[in-house]
Amino acid sequence: MHYPEPLEKLIQFLKKMPGVGRKTAERFAFHLLLWPKNQLVEFADAIAKAQEKLNTCQECGCLLDTSPCPFCDISKRQTHLLCIVGSVKDIFLIEKTREFRGLYHVLGGLLSPITGQSPALLRIDILKKRIEKYHVKEVILALDSTLEGDVTAHFLKKELDSLSLLASRLALGLPMGSSLDYIDGGTLARAFSGRRTF
Amino acid sequence: MHYPEPLEKLIQFLKKMPGVGRKTAERFAFHLLLWPKNQLVEFADAIAKAQEKLNTCQECGCLLDTSPCPFCDISKRQTHLLCIVGSVKDIFLIEKTREFRGLYHVLGGLLSPITGQSPALLRIDILKKRIEKYHVKEVILALDSTLEGDVTAHFLKKELDSLSLLASRLALGLPMGSSLDYIDGGTLARAFSGRRTF
Repeated sequence: MHYPEPLEKLIQFLKKMPGVGRKTAERFAFHLLLWPKNQLVEFADAIAKAQEKLNTCQECGCLLDTSPCPFCDISKRQTHLLCIVGSVKDIFLIEKTREFRGLYHVLGGLLSPITGQSPALLRIDILKKRIEKYHVKEVILALDSTLEGDVTAHFLKKELDSLSLLASRLALGLPMGSSLDYIDGGTLARAFSGRRTF
Repeated sequence: MHYPEPLEKLIQFLKKMPGVGRKTAERFAFHLLLWPKNQLVEFADAIAKAQEKLNTCQECGCLLDTSPCPFCDISKRQTHLLCIVGSVKDIFLIEKTREFRGLYHVLGGLLSPITGQSPALLRIDILKKRIEKYHVKEVILALDSTLEGDVTAHFLKKELDSLSLLASRLALGLPMGSSLDYIDGGTLARAFSGRRTF
């Protein structure tokens, strides 16, 4: 017994969300069928138009609500520090910590032999131009601690080698509130080698 | 730091999905921003039009792909058995088991003092007419084993009392493949009282 075609189509789209399998997609779809019509139309509109309504800053690559970009306002940011992130979302995560007041640069992805993300897509040229323009002294590679993050970090290190600046990566170690019992060996080893005087 | 408004709006809609919190909605939204434009438009279209493209069988209340309703085709179904379910989705779940070849009846919800679902919404009049028309001998209440399911089952039992037919509910007991260790006391007690000779 198959679902009617319009329902099946909806399920197939919902299944494309990260971490959503067949069962969850079915639950979402049946939930959507109960929504009032005007709400569904608004939702559909939000999906279809989000991309075109959102502007991207040509400098840092972040999403823009207002122009000029608040992250590129050099009167309010420390220009000698540049934080390189994989995606726009990372900027909002870092801003929440209030730990960093420098400039940002969005790569728009991480290098991956699996998905085929190649260096050409990483906005490297703009990155180099910005480093020279603002006389950046330190770049912080705030990349995932995954295979893709590591590969991208090494690639960037090599690319930026000639610019004589300090390159750093985020510390690896125990997440706050965690117990040694539940930490994998790799993380524990990195936490040891990165230990700080107390 | 807030997200730009079109993104925030999208997140708010995605958050309405069952079981989706703020963090998951954000992940979904950023994922959607990476989709190709034509795919987004198709997705939006599937959401906006699913309701109007889907027809409901006036008899059983199931979603229809083709007319007449395959579940109401009395040449292929046993008309003396009627299975009462809460929502359309339940029919597809039951059909997959190939355990039941009778008629279905979708209530369109369960009674709930919390969400305010009242008896008027349960399509009771059509249910009674169908029971008389097909000379149904047994109704199977395939309802959730929750408070709402119990309340609805008792309400239906009272409503159908005058029609002199057998009413049954799905068995309560251990899920297949489960270990006694992980079963709650209520389920175990019901599994005991519902034990079958072996």
